[in-house]
Amino acid sequence: MSEKFDPSAFLSKIIGQPVIVKLSSGLEFHGDLQSIDGFMNVVLEDTKEYNKGKLTKTYADAFIRGNNVMYISQA
Amino acid sequence: MSEKFDPSAFLSKIIGQPVIVKLSSGLEFHGDLQSIDGFMNVVLEDTKEYNKGKLTKTYADAFIRGNNVMYISQA
Amino acid sequence: MSEKFDPSAFLSKIIGQPVIVKLSSGLEFHGDLQSIDGFMNVVLEDTKEYNKGKLTKTYADAFIRGNNVMYISQA
Amino acid sequence: MSEKFDPSAFLSKIIGQPVIVKLSSGLEFHGDLQSIDGFMNVVLEDTKEYNKGKLTKTYADAFIRGNNVMYISQA
Amino acid sequence: MSEKFDPSAFLSKIIGQPVIVKLSSGLEFHGDLQSIDGFMNVVLEDTKEYNKGKLTKTYADAFIRGNNVMYISQA
Amino acid sequence: MSEKFDPSAFLSKIIGQPVIVKLSSGLEFHGDLQSIDGFMNVVLEDTKEYNKGKLTKTYADAFIRGNNVMYISQA
Amino acid sequence: MSEKFDPSAFLSKIIGQPVIVKLSSGLEFHGDLQSIDGFMNVVLEDTKEYNKGKLTKTYADAFIRGNNVMYISQA
Repeated sequence: MSEKFDPSAFLSKIIGQPVIVKLSSGLEFHGDLQSIDGFMNVVLEDTKEYNKGKLTKTYADAFIRGNNVMYISQA
Repeated sequence: MSEKFDPSAFLSKIIGQPVIVKLSSGLEFHGDLQSIDGFMNVVLEDTKEYNKGKLTKTYADAFIRGNNVMYISQA
Repeated sequence: MSEKFDPSAFLSKIIGQPVIVKLSSGLEFHGDLQSIDGFMNVVLEDTKEYNKGKLTKTYADAFIRGNNVMYISQA
Repeated sequence: MSEKFDPSAFLSKIIGQPVIVKLSSGLEFHGDLQSIDGFMNVVLEDTKEYNKGKLTKTYADAFIRGNNVMYISQA
Repeated sequence: MSEKFDPSAFLSKIIGQPVIVKLSSGLEFHGDLQSIDGFMNVVLEDTKEYNKGKLTKTYADAFIRGNNVMYISQA
Repeated sequence: MSEKFDPSAFLSKIIGQPVIVKLSSGLEFHGDLQSIDGFMNVVLEDTKEYNKGKLTKTYADAFIRGNNVMYISQA
Repeated sequence: MSEKFDPSAFLSKIIGQPVIVKLSSGLEFHGDLQSIDGFMNVVLEDTKEYNKGKLTKTYADAFIRGNNVMYISQA
């Protein structure tokens, strides 16, 4: 990824792709990035929740509130 | 859910549906999503409160303050 | 409560009614909802304070600062 | 107190009266409410500081920063 | 102090006087209140730092960031 | 670096360079600083995640949310 | 320092001088104050990181995010 993106451009580039969303609490959500807004609120599709590496829940879709997000990375 | 929604559109789409609201403290509220506003304040109907998976309380209606919300998912 | 309220309309509907106000710290206040403002600051009348289910204090009136509020439910 | 006050009106009504100011940290300050502003910053006169019910300090006047305040009640 | 001050007037009244600044972390700073601004940022002169009542450090001048301040009282 | 930069000028000067991003939680991310915005949101390329000095994860690219950032230093 | 400075004037007065920056987490950074902005974001040169009094790291330059800063004092 040599092209220069500003952070929000990076996020819109990975819409629809599988991502990992880690929260400040340590919880991790794996799913397809359905949408994201300026407050870092995230909607994931086919979401799996992991706690300390263990699968704890699955959801069709999950709305994750931005202010808990620590980082988002491509899965 | 292949259509593209932005996060708040996602939320209004699930008004009236059974949802799970998880707070940063770990508490979970199960109920019908009655309404939600721009601050993520949520009103649930026929609400059940779970603490570490155990049912701890039931309410007719509960107003949950947005800044405690970690995520909202369809039940 | 089938009518659709937005969260703040819900709150004004329960003014004067007995409510439970739970704080992020876990403290609970039971009393009559005297008034509430846009910051979720709450004034309760005939207030009882509970800590882990035990009655710890009673007040004539108590002003509770909004940013500590986790949820408000009808008693 | 049957008259309807909004929260800030309640606070101005109790200026000059003995109050208890409880902070999110659990510390309690007992004193006469000298003044309060829109950020919930409080000045108390003849202030006593309690920690878990034990008197730990006394001050002539103390300025308490609003964002630590959990609740204010009439003593 | 029977005259009525609003909180910020109280603070400007004690400029130059010895004060105690307690932080939310429990640390205490004793020194002469050199200046304070609207964010509660404080500059103290001849500052002594106390941790649980024990003198831990002294500084010529210290700039203390407002959002950590719990209370300020006259020494 | 004797020239005078204001903090944001410093950050843009190190775009493209290897940096260490430490979060308030203690997690460290090592990678090339791809971009940064006014909220301190950071995108790193070829990212390595360290927890207490141990390599815990690697990502192609990671978006790190600004409000968790404690400091950024040149690697 | 008898002259009266407001806090931000104090900070600009000590630009270029050796300072100690203490974070709310307890970490301390010693270095030359290269620059500071209105959000209390700080750039230090020749930076040493101390944890509980022990030297843990050194950096050429470090950008420290303002909202973690507890106090800044002249070294």
